[in-house]
Amino acid sequence: MTAVEAPPTGGPGAAPPARGWRRRHLLDLDELTWPEIELVLETTDAMKEVLGRPIAKVPALRGRNVTTLFYEASTRTRVSFEVAAKNLSADVVNVAVASSSVTKGESFVDTIRTIEALGADMLVIRHAVSGAPYLAAEIFGGNVLNAGDGWHAHPTQALLDLYTMRERLPDGSVAGKKVVILGDILHSRVARSNVWSLTAAGADLWLCGPATLLRGFEAWAAAGAAAGRPFTVTSDVSAALRDAAVVMALRIQRERMAAGLLPSLREYAARFGLTQERLRLARPDVVVMHPGPMNEGVEIAPDVATDPRAVITDQVTNGVAVRMALLYLLAGVHGEVAAG
Amino acid sequence: MTAVEAPPTGGPGAAPPARGWRRRHLLDLDELTWPEIELVLETTDAMKEVLGRPIAKVPALRGRNVTTLFYEASTRTRVSFEVAAKNLSADVVNVAVASSSVTKGESFVDTIRTIEALGADMLVIRHAVSGAPYLAAEIFGGNVLNAGDGWHAHPTQALLDLYTMRERLPDGSVAGKKVVILGDILHSRVARSNVWSLTAAGADLWLCGPATLLRGFEAWAAAGAAAGRPFTVTSDVSAALRDAAVVMALRIQRERMAAGLLPSLREYAARFGLTQERLRLARPDVVVMHPGPMNEGVEIAPDVATDPRAVITDQVTNGVAVRMALLYLLAGVHGEVAAG
Amino acid sequence: MTAVEAPPTGGPGAAPPARGWRRRHLLDLDELTWPEIELVLETTDAMKEVLGRPIAKVPALRGRNVTTLFYEASTRTRVSFEVAAKNLSADVVNVAVASSSVTKGESFVDTIRTIEALGADMLVIRHAVSGAPYLAAEIFGGNVLNAGDGWHAHPTQALLDLYTMRERLPDGSVAGKKVVILGDILHSRVARSNVWSLTAAGADLWLCGPATLLRGFEAWAAAGAAAGRPFTVTSDVSAALRDAAVVMALRIQRERMAAGLLPSLREYAARFGLTQERLRLARPDVVVMHPGPMNEGVEIAPDVATDPRAVITDQVTNGVAVRMALLYLLAGVHGEVAAG
Repeated sequence: MTAVEAPPTGGPGAAPPARGWRRRHLLDLDELTWPEIELVLETTDAMKEVLGRPIAKVPALRGRNVTTLFYEASTRTRVSFEVAAKNLSADVVNVAVASSSVTKGESFVDTIRTIEALGADMLVIRHAVSGAPYLAAEIFGGNVLNAGDGWHAHPTQALLDLYTMRERLPDGSVAGKKVVILGDILHSRVARSNVWSLTAAGADLWLCGPATLLRGFEAWAAAGAAAGRPFTVTSDVSAALRDAAVVMALRIQRERMAAGLLPSLREYAARFGLTQERLRLARPDVVVMHPGPMNEGVEIAPDVATDPRAVITDQVTNGVAVRMALLYLLAGVHGEVAAG
Repeated sequence: MTAVEAPPTGGPGAAPPARGWRRRHLLDLDELTWPEIELVLETTDAMKEVLGRPIAKVPALRGRNVTTLFYEASTRTRVSFEVAAKNLSADVVNVAVASSSVTKGESFVDTIRTIEALGADMLVIRHAVSGAPYLAAEIFGGNVLNAGDGWHAHPTQALLDLYTMRERLPDGSVAGKKVVILGDILHSRVARSNVWSLTAAGADLWLCGPATLLRGFEAWAAAGAAAGRPFTVTSDVSAALRDAAVVMALRIQRERMAAGLLPSLREYAARFGLTQERLRLARPDVVVMHPGPMNEGVEIAPDVATDPRAVITDQVTNGVAVRMALLYLLAGVHGEVAAG
Repeated sequence: MTAVEAPPTGGPGAAPPARGWRRRHLLDLDELTWPEIELVLETTDAMKEVLGRPIAKVPALRGRNVTTLFYEASTRTRVSFEVAAKNLSADVVNVAVASSSVTKGESFVDTIRTIEALGADMLVIRHAVSGAPYLAAEIFGGNVLNAGDGWHAHPTQALLDLYTMRERLPDGSVAGKKVVILGDILHSRVARSNVWSLTAAGADLWLCGPATLLRGFEAWAAAGAAAGRPFTVTSDVSAALRDAAVVMALRIQRERMAAGLLPSLREYAARFGLTQERLRLARPDVVVMHPGPMNEGVEIAPDVATDPRAVITDQVTNGVAVRMALLYLLAGVHGEVAAG
């Protein structure tokens, strides 16, 4: 994850949608072109239609083995991928690697080789170490989908966020719209992946949080501006929220306080929590988002979480559809055909 | 769970069996009419026929997502629901919520909303807090099945118990038969749900255990008598077992001793354990039951557990059939049609 | 597992392949005849053909319930059985019994009865106590497959090892070939099961390791020689490796040092680790194996693990095919037909 090298080419409408998907892996969004992102979103439309059927199941991946390999606990993302794969009729194998098992001594490389040898066609991986899915992709012969690696990337989350914004925004586009991501930007793989997709989409993107939780993003913003993909970084929550079309609050991890990065949850809530009062600065039809799980009363007030303008459960449902689309697109690309 | 309000109407034979099932959720048996209970039992007959086939699988719930959400560990009940759902061709997602995950801060309400948004059509929930499935049913748009909540209710267990009794009792009915539940009544959701189904069925129900483990049941028995659904509460194990047609021993939790409610497992076994000697007080063809898992040598002697009159594994098999019946019946009732 | 009683009859080619499989359970290889082993290997050929298809799935076990019951953590073997069963279209239920659950007090016998009553047709069991699958087989009405019991046996591992050797050895046979198993023989169920299959196959089998980790095997070797199934036991690693056609390194458990059986991992690696230098003693086309997970740098050097002659991931893939073959063969034998 470096801001300067190889930014995606083009912006919305810069090129016709790709006729076919050519990437073998989904590791992050920095390398996707806008037509590729649009192809994912269009395929997601088709998958949402499937989800609306009485029997939400198609045989697209029948006989394929999708293995989820999670080095961090995550019910939400793991189940989302599991349901997505089952809706496509794939066989799903769940592997949860507790720290105890890791210390059994087998190397990560051997684990990936073993999972492939066990028959996995597609590997969904979450790992606490940034970059681990990239290493997996070098080893694994099938398709790798990054389900979150360290602070680095969570590309399926950013794609479901983008899909949900387009579904809700007046003219179905984020181009030129003010989108605010509010909270612990520094430790957030969700924020980082959203930077790639939202700048590719031409949004007026603002990242807002305590200065201690924005470190390094000023430099990225400068590099992004130079590369034609600008975004704004600020600790001024009022400036950020003013006339916002979308506000996404991020989860505050309690562990950050121990590290001295936050004084207290109470103070965070007072200064940066997304309250109805603060929300009045935004557009009246602002779209409120959160990747979940929420700490209600900390980064988001309970009455904001349940506000009619909040689309938090839509994000979850769209997550299943986006992951169906990605599994479907990637499954068509094999090792011989293209390198991811 | 209150004894006095809204007892089920009618008794065995008081009304013709319901033509169609109208409830969206199964939370406890207190609200079921006898015809509804009979409809479950008749549907269970059909499901047992399916279980006897070489391929014990029907496509009834193909494409439906059944999610099990267990806040307490339970292999037995979780697997029973999982097998039942798979026998109906549903897709099953298992979510085990360890205490560590709960403390991640997400509210119960948000968890239920998220599971629905992930695509769950039917939710099987076990929770240590009495009433949690009721809250889930208020939030969840599909069907909720209570797989055990605190001390409160375990309705599928009571239905499989009733089904098993009818299968074994001479004329296929529990009406007028002496049925004894023996053990730690106080902490038993199994006992509480059985009170509803067995009084609805017109059984001569006796609850027996140490006085410390019967607290509150005298008052319930008085209220039940007033409402036309009497049962007997006693610490006299000989009086309870005399001429019993059915004896169900309940599991003794070792934790109860720490709480000062039991002197020792040894003393409990000596005074209330179901031994062959005590069993001689019952009818010669007494049906011996236990919800499992058994502490053999404590609440039930090993030679009683393996007595030919014990139907403990039949209970397990019938549990799969009862749960198939309930999933099948509930799946036909959607939010728009009826409220559970 | 005793060396002297009832050795398998015959050797390679001593009898025509069995026309039909007659055993209900797979508990160890000591009781299998060579024609039975060959039937497994031939059926594995057919299953490898299935694995090579675009949709690696056949309906052979549709509607069958395969339950995995693991009392020890094992991702590798559990997933291998799970994938094998799903490739045959069986429904798979995974039960992991943590030590905490075991202490809930239910007896092993009751657990097996419960799993059968829940609908399991085939039971895959791993247990830390040697012999536990034999007890399960006495109770369980369906088929039992031993997935590893204590130090005793791991028959599916030995069969996949044999299959992999035949796949790689010049003329597709291990008869007369020098096969070396190197490492902690004493605690290895893999080694013990391989003794049965490799002496049945007529290999020139050598077991090599520190003297403390060979205890009892000298006596077994003497009994084996008397029964016409000889093998060699030695601590001389050079003698063992000289002109070897196959070398299988075994995992060293760190716990062995605490028990005083090993001075240190470093010393073990120095004296018995499979290095390129040691491997030069073997035939140039030696086949290098390891059951995994590997401690690279301890029992096997990293450059040996990735040597082109290493077939460690082939072992994993063949494990799926062997387990498909065994599930398929055993599923045809029911309780009434034959006793395992």
